[in-house]
Amino acid sequence: MADSAPLHIAFLLFPGVTQLDLTGPAQVLSRLGDVKIDLVAKTRDPVETDAQFQLLPTATFADVPRTDIVCVPGGFGVVPAMDDAATLAWLRQVGAGAQWVTSVCTGSLLLAAAGLLTGYRAACHWASREHLAFFDVEPVAERVVFDRNRVSGGGVTAGIDFALALTAAIRGEAHAKFVQLSLEYDPAPPFDSGSPERADAETLARYRAMVERLAPDRAEQVRAIARRSRP
Amino acid sequence: MADSAPLHIAFLLFPGVTQLDLTGPAQVLSRLGDVKIDLVAKTRDPVETDAQFQLLPTATFADVPRTDIVCVPGGFGVVPAMDDAATLAWLRQVGAGAQWVTSVCTGSLLLAAAGLLTGYRAACHWASREHLAFFDVEPVAERVVFDRNRVSGGGVTAGIDFALALTAAIRGEAHAKFVQLSLEYDPAPPFDSGSPERADAETLARYRAMVERLAPDRAEQVRAIARRSRP
Repeated sequence: MADSAPLHIAFLLFPGVTQLDLTGPAQVLSRLGDVKIDLVAKTRDPVETDAQFQLLPTATFADVPRTDIVCVPGGFGVVPAMDDAATLAWLRQVGAGAQWVTSVCTGSLLLAAAGLLTGYRAACHWASREHLAFFDVEPVAERVVFDRNRVSGGGVTAGIDFALALTAAIRGEAHAKFVQLSLEYDPAPPFDSGSPERADAETLARYRAMVERLAPDRAEQVRAIARRSRP
Repeated sequence: MADSAPLHIAFLLFPGVTQLDLTGPAQVLSRLGDVKIDLVAKTRDPVETDAQFQLLPTATFADVPRTDIVCVPGGFGVVPAMDDAATLAWLRQVGAGAQWVTSVCTGSLLLAAAGLLTGYRAACHWASREHLAFFDVEPVAERVVFDRNRVSGGGVTAGIDFALALTAAIRGEAHAKFVQLSLEYDPAPPFDSGSPERADAETLARYRAMVERLAPDRAEQVRAIARRSRP
């Protein structure tokens, strides 16, 4: 794109997205200055999220043949999206030319399925992190992971930390601090239960039981997709 | 509502909302279990946010004559909304019967304009906090403030802390810890610039200059609305 055009950021939108994976970083990155944000989906129809409301695409795959930054959120809808040819084709197309290829939460699995993380280190939601290895991606237990022009955040709320780190990389630390102040991002979680290392055994067991109930075959599905995706 | 009905949560949606004020707590509260979430606006038309995309209402004011929890987000659109009779009338109507009357960021100013915080303590975005006093509301410099059944969060990202605290109040601490783990809410801000006390002088001056540029008359507008709203 011409230097005079705003920096273009394309968020992928798909059914079953964890909406905060997208809306958290979109809030931060909308304050980059001279930026154009699109929520990009297969069609312009409203897209169901995991939180009982829909998000409205601003553009379709055909409308966005290239972008400066592509960001892929996660959620339970990631597995069907990893098996969707049009979604993978669009990711490969925009990923090839983007300055930054990024993800939040299990969005890194979708980037991996598109072949965009092969040989890279990446973050993911803690409960799905090991699935990255099916795609020859190195899982990293960090909140935000930079590897060349690939940047990934951990689970859901890590999208805010990811986006502030990306803001600093693009516009400098002073601008990132300004955005942080504007969003009053001085977090004070009322409990200390935000990672498997810090959560108590009962909370962890309850989470694992919920995943087992809602998506018992998830690891096997992701493994099968990875097997089919090998060239 | 009957005890067998899901807990109903109504988020107010208005043009110029800071979308993360709404989408952050909506993500957390969607995991309360047995809950029904609505984004409520004057009409069903898509509503412009501050982040270059629209949010789609799930219901209109007329559709939601009562709710269990009302939550009002903030943003630059708060000032026109404080002057909108239909919005204030709906807030008064649902606020009168709700179990919890809540806000995030400058949403507390809108609750105040509807007369729902008179004599209460409340949080607000740090840069607008003192405006609460125009409405005989006590401004509190805390991340989350409970006062009887009024619960308010500070600026933008405080909505996540607010919603976890409310989750604990409604479903107990164990459930809140479970939700926190599911959202991997183990924040790691890359900088320490999230409050006026922690930000450096240059960042603070830049923020104040931005507000002065975008909304030079804000304090006076809010004061005028407060004056008109007195019975």
